[in-house]
Amino acid sequence: MTKKQMKLGAFFMIPGHHVAAWRHPKAEAHNVMNFDFLKRLAQTAERGKFDMVFLADGYAVRAKNQKVLDQTVNTHFEPFTLLSALSAVTHHVGLVGTVSTTYNEPFHVARKFASLDHLSNGRAAWNVVTSNTEEEARNFNQEHHLLHSKRYDRAGEFVDVVEKLWDSWEDEALVIDKKSAQFAEGSKIHAVNHKGEWFSVEGPLNVSRPVQGHPVVVQAGSSEDGKELAARTAEVIFTAWQTLEEAQAFYSDVKGRMAKYGRKPEELKIMPGIFPVIGKNAEEAEENKRLLEELIPEEAGISLLSAMISFDLSSFPVDGPLPELPELDQVNGGKSRFKLLKDLADREGLTIRKLYQRIAGARGHREIKGTPEQIVDQMQEWFENGAADGFNVMPPYLPGGLDDFVDHVIPVLQQRGLFRTEYRGNTLRENLGLKRPANTLIAKTKETI
Amino acid sequence: MTKKQMKLGAFFMIPGHHVAAWRHPKAEAHNVMNFDFLKRLAQTAERGKFDMVFLADGYAVRAKNQKVLDQTVNTHFEPFTLLSALSAVTHHVGLVGTVSTTYNEPFHVARKFASLDHLSNGRAAWNVVTSNTEEEARNFNQEHHLLHSKRYDRAGEFVDVVEKLWDSWEDEALVIDKKSAQFAEGSKIHAVNHKGEWFSVEGPLNVSRPVQGHPVVVQAGSSEDGKELAARTAEVIFTAWQTLEEAQAFYSDVKGRMAKYGRKPEELKIMPGIFPVIGKNAEEAEENKRLLEELIPEEAGISLLSAMISFDLSSFPVDGPLPELPELDQVNGGKSRFKLLKDLADREGLTIRKLYQRIAGARGHREIKGTPEQIVDQMQEWFENGAADGFNVMPPYLPGGLDDFVDHVIPVLQQRGLFRTEYRGNTLRENLGLKRPANTLIAKTKETI
Repeated sequence: MTKKQMKLGAFFMIPGHHVAAWRHPKAEAHNVMNFDFLKRLAQTAERGKFDMVFLADGYAVRAKNQKVLDQTVNTHFEPFTLLSALSAVTHHVGLVGTVSTTYNEPFHVARKFASLDHLSNGRAAWNVVTSNTEEEARNFNQEHHLLHSKRYDRAGEFVDVVEKLWDSWEDEALVIDKKSAQFAEGSKIHAVNHKGEWFSVEGPLNVSRPVQGHPVVVQAGSSEDGKELAARTAEVIFTAWQTLEEAQAFYSDVKGRMAKYGRKPEELKIMPGIFPVIGKNAEEAEENKRLLEELIPEEAGISLLSAMISFDLSSFPVDGPLPELPELDQVNGGKSRFKLLKDLADREGLTIRKLYQRIAGARGHREIKGTPEQIVDQMQEWFENGAADGFNVMPPYLPGGLDDFVDHVIPVLQQRGLFRTEYRGNTLRENLGLKRPANTLIAKTKETI
Repeated sequence: MTKKQMKLGAFFMIPGHHVAAWRHPKAEAHNVMNFDFLKRLAQTAERGKFDMVFLADGYAVRAKNQKVLDQTVNTHFEPFTLLSALSAVTHHVGLVGTVSTTYNEPFHVARKFASLDHLSNGRAAWNVVTSNTEEEARNFNQEHHLLHSKRYDRAGEFVDVVEKLWDSWEDEALVIDKKSAQFAEGSKIHAVNHKGEWFSVEGPLNVSRPVQGHPVVVQAGSSEDGKELAARTAEVIFTAWQTLEEAQAFYSDVKGRMAKYGRKPEELKIMPGIFPVIGKNAEEAEENKRLLEELIPEEAGISLLSAMISFDLSSFPVDGPLPELPELDQVNGGKSRFKLLKDLADREGLTIRKLYQRIAGARGHREIKGTPEQIVDQMQEWFENGAADGFNVMPPYLPGGLDDFVDHVIPVLQQRGLFRTEYRGNTLRENLGLKRPANTLIAKTKETI
């Protein structure tokens, strides 16, 4: 029996996770809208045997004023078109697209992921999110965005409808017999006839059952509502924790909620984000971090922090403390991120500037600074102590930050037996060690792993 | 000065336009959901120097009963994911995706086409349609679909919002100066602040201006409402005509409506569909056609015809005449197709069976049967007599029908100087001879061709 190995995602923000990434000498800022650049990144992730590449998403320009619009990157490929294009130039790596349940329709979303799963021969995954900014609401005919609990209500029903649509064609529905004029067995194609609070969808889908049965369902919310939805529906969670203890508590909390939905702990992979700042030695890593901090324009730093806590900090002294913030139950943005940052500032007595410098790269995720061996030590600690099934790796700048990780960190992980040296599965689901789901619309369960 | 040349689209239905295509010996029915097959088709179209490949779309399974579900192909790639993947494995051919304005949001549609245009270096085009079936309505929380005129109202406003969003970044908005910390010039990124009857969209888009300024806008409706929308907004029309006279009348009608919108006739390319049945000689072409007719299962033929005239024919004798049909103004489906088929049946006294055999391939478009030279003769007649700026080619079965067209018909067109031998433009727009549109959101027009 081989040693348990970790799962790895390559979380791409272009041209890097750090808010000043685009100014870094090793970032290709001029290639932000160049497909060949993205293709190179995906192929590098595949060379590193990553399980998947992951793209976040939002439906509005993030910058809230002209100065920040000047200083930050506000143009990106739309994830779905990009992942579809990447499916044609990669062979093994999974393709995780973020699609919000707030401003979309289940039929479209089920269909696009089913299509991507066929295109890629079983490598599609859906990161289920809810949209929580006023700017996004105003791009979709709304004055205000939905309340937090309403968003999660809608998200839960949305996922259910999408999974039913994926199951609307049985695996055996396709016959394709030219002689007898039978393309399909119609009795194995089912209407879903969903009528719920948010959606009425008749079905069936006009795409046959995805290669993976269901594309892998990913989630990133870590609020109470988010944890409950994840325990019921998610197969991968991307999450953000600063300390081993917090990560362990989250890990056992969510895995503990699964039994009541008839699920086993191993049916869900918990993958905290890590922001690796790599150096040949400790000094070089430190120097690398300092360079990034120096590159942050002040307005962009304040704006990023304001967005992350859903509270405008632009009128407060940047070298003073955080002002008094609303109570958690008054926050209608990302609740878990709000709490994490407020706790961090309180714990370490950080000024606004120090706080934005701290989060301008990792954005609330764990920063790991050091040599490849030191980085692997810290990953191993979490992995072997019930805090993580793997990690979502957030390169500070691209392509340099990814190249360094693949060339220097991955080999150390492999030497210690903590990560694969070759892809073993044919699909993302197989590489992640997740079962192919049974068809929920038919009485008898015919599927196997 | 070179001779005026026609434009050509490759209109793919998989595995062919004929309703019985999948049963044809030269159709790869088992590859319907195989990307490598689609890649091969797109690369064949590019080898033939086609301007573009075109994918139709719909948001429901077409078959209305289990027998037809058995006999016809009801699973396809979603066009947008497919075209995005094809953009990564082609270099010149345009990529035309159908997206309905009835069950989508302008922000998503503007963004996806902008993204595809960047991915493909300027090869994206949007075929604007409205959705007109009850089955589609029931997949999107509706009991019934919108009335014809309402659909076109919404479509008109939808196109306007999308074009504003494409213009929300000026071409010169990107600065990307690492030293001065200026990624963009924020004053060249504009909110669109659209508030209309159907949509409220603030903008700007989170994608910079498309390579082509605007992806090419295509339209296919030929009703009164459709013609008016096309005269105002379309750059390409795919249309269906049986006779030279009808096609000429449509051509001059639509081009004549453009002046009142400040547009010149050459800013719109009219491309009727043709369904080529090719043979080495007349007998082989005839034999080819007969084989396809024999392969049509009766229920599938009746169902296809019923869908095309928005009237259920399943209870009428198949070898009898068409029953009495509603008046045109009572039809809430595709009005122009209804009229075309009713007129055809009346003119030639066709039974239901004869009519479905007639339209089971070309689906109301013009069928051209014969040797490559005979096919080119007929294309040339329309092209040189004010009926067409080019053609949308509908191979009966795939890949055979496309291979034959590229290997045998295209060379004859080229010998006669009617079609390009190499791509000249860098973008679809350039290959089609269409101007790059000025930015409608800024006062001064800065763009040139």
